[in-house]
Parts: sequence; C-alpha cells; structure tokens
Amino acid sequence: MDDRLKKQLDFSLEIDKEKNVFRQTHLSGHGRNENDAEHAWHMAIMAYLLREYSNEEIDIAKAMMMCLIHDIVEIDAGDTYAYDEEGLSTQKAREDAAKKRIYSLLPEDQKEELISLFDEFEEYKSAESKFAHAMDNLQPLILNNSNDGSDWKEHGVSAETVYKRQSMTRLGSEKLFEVTDRIIRENIHNGNLKE
Amino acid sequence: MDDRLKKQLDFSLEIDKEKNVFRQTHLSGHGRNENDAEHAWHMAIMAYLLREYSNEEIDIAKAMMMCLIHDIVEIDAGDTYAYDEEGLSTQKAREDAAKKRIYSLLPEDQKEELISLFDEFEEYKSAESKFAHAMDNLQPLILNNSNDGSDWKEHGVSAETVYKRQSMTRLGSEKLFEVTDRIIRENIHNGNLKE
Repeated sequence: MDDRLKKQLDFSLEIDKEKNVFRQTHLSGHGRNENDAEHAWHMAIMAYLLREYSNEEIDIAKAMMMCLIHDIVEIDAGDTYAYDEEGLSTQKAREDAAKKRIYSLLPEDQKEELISLFDEFEEYKSAESKFAHAMDNLQPLILNNSNDGSDWKEHGVSAETVYKRQSMTRLGSEKLFEVTDRIIRENIHNGNLKE
Repeated sequence: MDDRLKKQLDFSLEIDKEKNVFRQTHLSGHGRNENDAEHAWHMAIMAYLLREYSNEEIDIAKAMMMCLIHDIVEIDAGDTYAYDEEGLSTQKAREDAAKKRIYSLLPEDQKEELISLFDEFEEYKSAESKFAHAMDNLQPLILNNSNDGSDWKEHGVSAETVYKRQSMTRLGSEKLFEVTDRIIRENIHNGNLKE
C-alpha cells in the first residue's frame, strides 16, 4: 500500500477512539451519556437541515466537516464540560497537544487542512464556524430539553450560566437563538433550571 | 415557533434514536458493538479524506450527507447484518415503511430531498452512491481487521461471502478495492477468515 493511503487509513482507524469519549449530555428518552462521535454526527445533519437559518451564507460541506471533526482532539484531551471552570482553564493546552499528535497521522496536506479547519472552528469568526458552534449548542439543548433538563439539574447549573454559553448561538443564527431563548425560559418556568 | 422550524427540530430529535441501533461490528481495541450513528459519522469523515480515490468526480457534500443519513431507516427497521440471508429478504419492506414514517416528520421539501438522497444511495448508480457504499464497506473492514477479524470469526463467515459484498467497493473506487482485497487475503492467510 502506498504511504499516503496508509497514513489516511491509520488516521481513520485512530479516530474510532472518539466513540469512547463520553459527554455530560444524555440521549433522549432519559438514555445513557452521549459520546463525541454521536454528537458530531447529529450536529452535521442538523447543520445541513437548518442551514437556511444561518445569519450568513455558508459553505455547507465545510460547516459539516467542522461539525464532524471538532471533537477529535478529545481522544487525548477528554471532554471538558461546558460548565466546568477548572477543566476549561487547561482545555486549550491539552487540546493543542492532542491536535498535534492526532492530525500528524495524516499526509502533510491533509494534516494542514484539518488543523486549519479545526483552528477556524475554534476562532469563532467565519460564518461556518459561527454556525457550527450554534449546532454545538443547540444539539445538546434539544436532548436535554427532551429529558426535562436533567443534565442541568444533575449539575445544578443556573440559567445565567446557560445563557452565557447559549447566547453565542446568536452569532451564527438569530432565528435559532430565538428558539434557544424560548426553550431556556420554558425550563426556568418548569423549575428545570435555577433562575 | 413556526411550523417549518418545529418540524425540523422534531426530526432532529427523532434521529437521536439512531444511537441506540447497534451493529455487528465492534469498535477497535476489541471494544463494544458499534452503533449506526457512530458508523455514519466515521463513514462521512472517511469519504472526505479518501475522496481522491473515487473512480468518478463526486459532490462531497452530497456523498457525506448520504453517509450520514443512510441508516436512519434502521431506527424502525433495525440493523440487518450484511451476512444474514433471512433478514436481508425482508429488509426492503421494513426500510420502506420506516423511510415513510421518519422522513414525514420534516417539512415537505426536505422530506422529498432526503428520501431522494436515500433512494439514490440505495440504487447504487450515481458516483456519490457508489463511493458512499465503498465507505459503508471499508469502514467496518478496517475495524474488524484491527480486531483480528473477530466479527467474521464470531459468525463463521467465509471469504467468498465477504468478497461478494466487498467486491462492490470496486464500483466506487478501484484503488480502495485493491486495499480491501489485500486486507481480506491477509485475514485468510492468518486464519481469521475461512477460505
């Protein structure tokens, strides 16, 4: 097998490990914890179906790839819960080291391409990045909402903390932030989320 | 919330159930069974990274969406093991009913679009369909190969049966079929696959 294809297949096998990185979010129907690969799959389909609500025109293949790869670094760095202050303080360093190791399995051009795509996602500036982040917020929100806010209750999260993260959805989609805001208000009203 | 967006979010929540549909394939490292959502995520990334080996030029966003949605019908129809003759005989009818129910949750235009994409995948004719099928074959092959063919051993599958399915990869990619053929031969040689 030629070296290029061997590297591509080695990387493909390596990312299988993302299926073992579990998140704080639970599947609908009060199911088990979700893993990163499932989360990324769900985000990519939602990005495709909801792209009409992006504030700016997006390249959908690019936005989908961002969704699909954005958590690969967590194979080494682990999942950092959105509301874990301590974990968040070391997240960048852990993810940088992971990024270097894992993407280096690819041929040089694809290594550069995927790192650039991941960095663009992290920078939160391009239209695709902002919309992919909106999916990263909305996808766990609809699961948690379907489970009567059990993920928030488990961690005693306040509405203020949730708004701090979820309000960023507005940068990608004003329309989807309206829905987000409504879901949060309903959960406050129902006592699922502390005011 | 307007009716269109409500339908899109209802569908997005419904497909969460795909994470509970487990396959015969095991994760690398002799892990647990893989589920359909994880499999689809893995296929979509592989499609992007390996698209240079497609026999024909492909629209990558379309091929990735095919990969991502191709197993949604299994939420109702269940997974049919590639080498289960009895299950295969009723698969089409079960999947048709599932297709109708699940995609009908979407607004009419997106229902038609996604059913058309799924049907195109099933027809095995377009360039994107043939390449997506190549991923559907190659992704479990690299996992199973990394586990010393344990999925084949468990089911006593013969090389002939594996070739019958995997040789279709050639329709999407001659180059990836060469690798497939080599992996199968190695597994026969190592006694992981019955001749």
